[in-house]
Amino acid sequence: MKIENILVTGRIYQELKELIPQRVDKNMLFLPEKNVKAEDLEWADAYVAFQPTANFHFGNLKWVHSLGAGVDRYLDLPSWKSDVLLTRTITSFGQRIGEFVLSHILHDLQHHKKFQQQQLTKKWQVEPPKLLCDINVIIYGTGEIGQEVARILSFFNVTVYGISISGEAIKHFSKVMKSADRALLQQVDYVINTLPLTPMTNHFFDSTFFEVLWDTTFINVGRGMSVQVEDLLRALEKGYVKRAVLDVFEIEPLPSESPLWTHSKITITPHISAITTPEEAVECFLQTLQDVENEQLPKNSVDLQKNY
Amino acid sequence: MKIENILVTGRIYQELKELIPQRVDKNMLFLPEKNVKAEDLEWADAYVAFQPTANFHFGNLKWVHSLGAGVDRYLDLPSWKSDVLLTRTITSFGQRIGEFVLSHILHDLQHHKKFQQQQLTKKWQVEPPKLLCDINVIIYGTGEIGQEVARILSFFNVTVYGISISGEAIKHFSKVMKSADRALLQQVDYVINTLPLTPMTNHFFDSTFFEVLWDTTFINVGRGMSVQVEDLLRALEKGYVKRAVLDVFEIEPLPSESPLWTHSKITITPHISAITTPEEAVECFLQTLQDVENEQLPKNSVDLQKNY
Repeated sequence: MKIENILVTGRIYQELKELIPQRVDKNMLFLPEKNVKAEDLEWADAYVAFQPTANFHFGNLKWVHSLGAGVDRYLDLPSWKSDVLLTRTITSFGQRIGEFVLSHILHDLQHHKKFQQQQLTKKWQVEPPKLLCDINVIIYGTGEIGQEVARILSFFNVTVYGISISGEAIKHFSKVMKSADRALLQQVDYVINTLPLTPMTNHFFDSTFFEVLWDTTFINVGRGMSVQVEDLLRALEKGYVKRAVLDVFEIEPLPSESPLWTHSKITITPHISAITTPEEAVECFLQTLQDVENEQLPKNSVDLQKNY
Repeated sequence: MKIENILVTGRIYQELKELIPQRVDKNMLFLPEKNVKAEDLEWADAYVAFQPTANFHFGNLKWVHSLGAGVDRYLDLPSWKSDVLLTRTITSFGQRIGEFVLSHILHDLQHHKKFQQQQLTKKWQVEPPKLLCDINVIIYGTGEIGQEVARILSFFNVTVYGISISGEAIKHFSKVMKSADRALLQQVDYVINTLPLTPMTNHFFDSTFFEVLWDTTFINVGRGMSVQVEDLLRALEKGYVKRAVLDVFEIEPLPSESPLWTHSKITITPHISAITTPEEAVECFLQTLQDVENEQLPKNSVDLQKNY
């Protein structure tokens, strides 16, 4: 399809304004979200942003490109116009999330916190680190991100289980299943959520899930809405979950009144595990634009049946 | 050679007492260091320990087996009896040190400290983590340990330089050299010491070395004596070195009066990066014993010319 007018908005619109125009010859409008007017949406063929603006409407849009990997905020619109192409940003997310996850696992296994506390009191007490090859991890979601996390962990001989809709075997996973039974969940040291947010995964991690675990660390790099927060807090209190590393939240930035901020067993990071750098966003956008104009279905198109 | 009487001493002698006798049929004595008497050393064919006891003498010893990877404390004896075989423990040191090093690098790149501080004040401020593929690392020492650190880092596409006596190319290193020039040292993000302690490496890391760096992190998993501590402190103060992660020290446990304990840019760990677990020590000892009795030179024999 032919794209002439492109509207770019959201957190990094200024960085994109510096990077894109020198590389494509299109009519482009770069605006902060609050300045996007109804007529801008009428004008545009393409909308490029992390999420729809509050006043979003489809106008004459033919293509919406999400600057993030997640498209749930678009699919939460009252209805998606079926002839509008939806694409999402896929860059080095897998690698980024893999390094994020590994850093928090190694933090635990290498006793960073304990040794930091010992140093404060000049205490020399040997505690052998645990090796990665001695832990079991289960990854929910075996897509791009889950696979890359599995590739990294399996390099260190971590035993990695995967959960997917099909349950089909995938490289780097010791075993992929449609669901995990109680016996397996009780022996895993880490549960890692990489699932996209869909009606199926909304509040998937609730008491029913957590209360099968024991002394397990939960890492969420998927979506905040997949976790029932009150249930996670109860699971932490009762010992089902030992520690939680949360990079994503139902509302972001995480509101200051959230009990998550001050919980001693919770680590909060500001949604940085799969951050889109402006440079990476531009590369992905330009590649997608090229596919769109060449009438090729971009690899990063969203399947509206699957919601990702 | 024939080994009949084996003396085992040091920190883990009790654990070894529970593990070894059920697997070998020898006369064995397991003692804490302070209880080792001159006549025990006369009695023994083999001495198995992390270091010589204060009253150590060669007696009738034919073989000394170090429970650690380092043998400098043995080679510091007034003289080594040339017909006594010296072997050292080589187990999963490389893997252990690799995971230790990686954990501290990822701690930095993933901004663990910054996000921890932000959480304390409920501050949501995005700071994109750096990727491992964007850093340069130089490893001093390209033996078992240096190679394993390089293997792990190169998996993540870290650019890894190595320094060795020969300067010969080795797998997983982008380049191995006999020494690093100023231009190279100025662009490395991490300097990792894995060198054994020898007359050549004693106080190798001094002002002359540090003051060529700029804003570099220094990780010492080799030996404490390789570092000139006052020079490291000066380099931290002046900004040549940004941060130091020290797992090994001239005197261990690190004395409480050491200024290293309270330095805000120094992380202290209690010599755990290459810890010998009793189980691993036993496996290595038994393999070495078998080689010794079969008149095969064990792979873990120390070359007294090279001092490692």
